[in-house]
Amino acid sequence: PDDDAAAAAAAREPTLTKPAGSLGRLEDIAAWMAAWQGRHPPRLERTRCVVFAGNHGIASQGVSAFPPEVTVQMVANFRAGGAAINQLCRAGGADLDVIALDLERPTAPFDSAPAMTDEDLLGAVNAGLTLDLTDTDLLIVGEMGIANTTAAAALALALFGGTAADWVGRGTGVDDAGLGRKRAVVEAAMAHHGTALADPLEALRRVGGRELAAMAGGILAARRTRVPVLLDGFICCAAAAVWHRLTPGGLDHAMAGHVSREPGHRRLLALLDKEPLLDLGLRLGEGSGAAAALGVVRGAVACHAGMATFADAGVTGG
Amino acid sequence: PDDDAAAAAAAREPTLTKPAGSLGRLEDIAAWMAAWQGRHPPRLERTRCVVFAGNHGIASQGVSAFPPEVTVQMVANFRAGGAAINQLCRAGGADLDVIALDLERPTAPFDSAPAMTDEDLLGAVNAGLTLDLTDTDLLIVGEMGIANTTAAAALALALFGGTAADWVGRGTGVDDAGLGRKRAVVEAAMAHHGTALADPLEALRRVGGRELAAMAGGILAARRTRVPVLLDGFICCAAAAVWHRLTPGGLDHAMAGHVSREPGHRRLLALLDKEPLLDLGLRLGEGSGAAAALGVVRGAVACHAGMATFADAGVTGG
Repeated sequence: PDDDAAAAAAAREPTLTKPAGSLGRLEDIAAWMAAWQGRHPPRLERTRCVVFAGNHGIASQGVSAFPPEVTVQMVANFRAGGAAINQLCRAGGADLDVIALDLERPTAPFDSAPAMTDEDLLGAVNAGLTLDLTDTDLLIVGEMGIANTTAAAALALALFGGTAADWVGRGTGVDDAGLGRKRAVVEAAMAHHGTALADPLEALRRVGGRELAAMAGGILAARRTRVPVLLDGFICCAAAAVWHRLTPGGLDHAMAGHVSREPGHRRLLALLDKEPLLDLGLRLGEGSGAAAALGVVRGAVACHAGMATFADAGVTGG
Repeated sequence: PDDDAAAAAAAREPTLTKPAGSLGRLEDIAAWMAAWQGRHPPRLERTRCVVFAGNHGIASQGVSAFPPEVTVQMVANFRAGGAAINQLCRAGGADLDVIALDLERPTAPFDSAPAMTDEDLLGAVNAGLTLDLTDTDLLIVGEMGIANTTAAAALALALFGGTAADWVGRGTGVDDAGLGRKRAVVEAAMAHHGTALADPLEALRRVGGRELAAMAGGILAARRTRVPVLLDGFICCAAAAVWHRLTPGGLDHAMAGHVSREPGHRRLLALLDKEPLLDLGLRLGEGSGAAAALGVVRGAVACHAGMATFADAGVTGG
């Protein structure tokens, strides 16, 4: 973070025409945006949302309520403007890009093999790391990938421990039998990969997926180019958590846009020490929860940057 | 509500390209907007935010951290575009109007007299009731009035019972002594007005204020003209609660935009059976918490109205 921008935000806030602290977390958001953009006042003109799509070998094991071909179909839907994230980006004033990652070549089923080779992992991370974030004021990374809540659960378990039941939820809406299959797959993955999962990046390679790796890459690219990040749901946060496990403070440039109804997400946010902006029962992914929170961030920046001071407005202070 | 529009929303929702229920409360918001606008799909092109300002005789009793002249000063700030609500309306895409209600003539100190005459009450209610809501898709009513959390606490206590301590909070930030004075004023008002407060409109007249009465009028006008309402904080909700107490379901056309840090607001929302969209520690009034939630409503309407169906997009259902 930029100490000068943070100090400038802290100095301006109490001069604005409102009781001290009365904008609550909007004040924190503005200060955070300033510190991580390295700019005061902070700016929110260009928000980019990038949705990464990947396919998962594990999808063949009945861990999703939807068949694997839906990943490709939804990418077409994103490109045609018909998905939820298209509407939320338009409503929230964000540019949307969709990056499909080798959809015709699913990852290996990670209960019995590494999901990705080293080359696959690097290629996927690079898809995020090489995003051109010029003039980007805020980044949202989203995902599409049938079966990817199973990958996220395995990754979260590898990174933070616990049991498969702690991290496995219904995703797009599997029934009890599907939930049992998800748990079994995650448990099998832990048994198969064993202590190799202790390294966060190796865990990402072995039980993650291309879209998770690309999101992690995008979040790192943002850090390097002073672009704050608004995190989406469980899958996005599982990918992001790799940096948290590698480096203390490695996610300080990211804020949680929302908490989803996928139970692992609330647990994960607590471990990441992130308080979500929204808690509205979403469980869609695509970046949708973060995009739904854009209006809050936009309002926070607008207040901090645009409000009159007590002195300028001739208002008597408290 | 309009049953046909509600039925049309309920029929469309499961056809959209997402797992059933995965947009959580965004789906509820879209259905509610359709039902109360009497239009499917619902629309959010024009949002109006109207801030009513009033002065309170009770302000002279040291119940606010700010002096009473700040009401007039803040009205000037609203008109010059310098307040938080100006920035939030611009960021959220709402038109803002400010209506000052006889600021040079504060209400009577309600601990020892009715705050308003019948004529005053009617004039203030009419300021809201006669709002021209043509082509308005959503209404926010906000307020400015030094000492009005004390009026709101007295009104909430009159409407719902409890003790003064249940409803009195720090407002703009009074110290412990100020908090004690607020409680004492509210207790004195209960003793002075007694059973006359059992009638909700009479309670509004005796312990409310002009801006509270005008907000109540605006909320009623919206009901009559099929305009959904996004409620703001404690003062707005205390005024709105008059209709809840007069008529079961009288606030069904209103959703809670946020829950504020003023402790009485959370209590009041529970009694009104309203789940807030945001919980971000705001405690400013002006309509700010509702305006901060506009992006969520905008996103909800955009998803419901704009998403492709499974059939149109060629996406396999779950």
